[in-house]
Amino acid sequence: MNSASLDQLCIHTITTKPWAIETSAAKFAAAGVKGITVWRDALAGRDIAKTGQLLRDHGLSIVSLCRGGFFPAATAADRAKALDDNRKAIAEAHALGAPLIVLVCGAVPGQPLTESRRQIVDGIAALLPDCQAAGVKLAIEPLHPMYAGDRSAVNTLAQANDMVAQLKSPLVGVALDTYHVWWDPALEQEIARCAQLNALFAYHVCDWRTPTVDMLNDRGLMGEGCIPLRQIRAWVEATGYRGFNEVEIFSTRLWATDQDEFLAKIVQAYRDHV
Amino acid sequence: MNSASLDQLCIHTITTKPWAIETSAAKFAAAGVKGITVWRDALAGRDIAKTGQLLRDHGLSIVSLCRGGFFPAATAADRAKALDDNRKAIAEAHALGAPLIVLVCGAVPGQPLTESRRQIVDGIAALLPDCQAAGVKLAIEPLHPMYAGDRSAVNTLAQANDMVAQLKSPLVGVALDTYHVWWDPALEQEIARCAQLNALFAYHVCDWRTPTVDMLNDRGLMGEGCIPLRQIRAWVEATGYRGFNEVEIFSTRLWATDQDEFLAKIVQAYRDHV
Repeated sequence: MNSASLDQLCIHTITTKPWAIETSAAKFAAAGVKGITVWRDALAGRDIAKTGQLLRDHGLSIVSLCRGGFFPAATAADRAKALDDNRKAIAEAHALGAPLIVLVCGAVPGQPLTESRRQIVDGIAALLPDCQAAGVKLAIEPLHPMYAGDRSAVNTLAQANDMVAQLKSPLVGVALDTYHVWWDPALEQEIARCAQLNALFAYHVCDWRTPTVDMLNDRGLMGEGCIPLRQIRAWVEATGYRGFNEVEIFSTRLWATDQDEFLAKIVQAYRDHV
Repeated sequence: MNSASLDQLCIHTITTKPWAIETSAAKFAAAGVKGITVWRDALAGRDIAKTGQLLRDHGLSIVSLCRGGFFPAATAADRAKALDDNRKAIAEAHALGAPLIVLVCGAVPGQPLTESRRQIVDGIAALLPDCQAAGVKLAIEPLHPMYAGDRSAVNTLAQANDMVAQLKSPLVGVALDTYHVWWDPALEQEIARCAQLNALFAYHVCDWRTPTVDMLNDRGLMGEGCIPLRQIRAWVEATGYRGFNEVEIFSTRLWATDQDEFLAKIVQAYRDHV
């Protein structure tokens, strides 16, 4: 399989976390990167609409805003608070000019996963009028089962697809991140099903290191681990997907390196491994 | 749902790793524990048959030997070495008087999981004559997807059941560990299918802590985490399972505590949460 096109390379602001978003924008553009996904913390203290314009002025497509979600909670009051925060995210995405919000759906330690899943579906449904008004879509991101305790009760692509099918809205789809799903024996068939649902909204890449020393912040650069990235992109592109390949790496180790060199390595790893 | 019967309480030697097996045997028996699963490292330097007799003299049932497996490897020579080690484990189980070996099936970073799964099935098939001769069964343990990189390419109960169905031997079944499978949306139905295959050979309990600070050695005592242990035991017992509930906890934190107090806590947590 051929290398992925550089025209489809998007990088998440969190990948180069030590840089301010203005720096990331300039450096990404200079490196030939065409897309940027913005994490909400990168917008702190900024005029969001102006920041969106700055990104576009650099020739960057704003691919998505990360992130909304965390719908489940033990009390109705806390679930309402979560909806408020998601409505804020929708307003931010609208101001920024991001067409999509990625959802880390949430889980409550000790609350049955089935209950959390009901609350997630209810939460997303409640946001749809706001999404419609703002012209912003939502992408359910299935998270690795190691996050089922406290970060997401949606742990396989099959579950995300089931939710999309249940919600029956063109505004709701899936953000597929290789880090979370690479191990899944049903991955190929569920990617096809996701596309049949017109729900394959985003595709994220990085790598899985062995050993992984931290469950949150030890992701690998593509090629540093064991995820069959070419195989998975082949499955994704077999559905007709031609959207961005988004590099989303949380790594204490890589954040501690020179970020200019890291960016050059990202572009090379994208050519060699994605 | 009622507490599990103390008559079904088994503890793994690794759970009280600071104790020699002779100490564990005496302490377990005094605490009313009826079963013991022996880790191979606990047998180092000992006469295995005599150790088995010692355990039985304490009134303990020897539930299983942990562990065999690690079948996949990049070369045929290394796969043959893995078979040799498994044959050694079968001989040890026979000498000890353990009717079952738990298999951590293995994975090779970078080797496709599908290839590792083929090698696992081939490896188990190659051992069956030895198992038959020794009167020792094998239990495939599905491991959490966070171990797919390097410890096991079998990551769901569905996959383990598929392998059992493929191998079609009464000598091959499943060891179900709540730590690995609690998040799985297909768990209830696959437990039922496992029992229909006459393959539910063992049931292990512990808990999942949030956050989990180490992927190998930060398991929780039952009640310290978010695994719905009563719900899962209900599914297991609904199939007619009346075997042991085996406490298998790897925890740097708990190993550092007074092991007599820890054993008392295990018995109490078993009553309160299993």
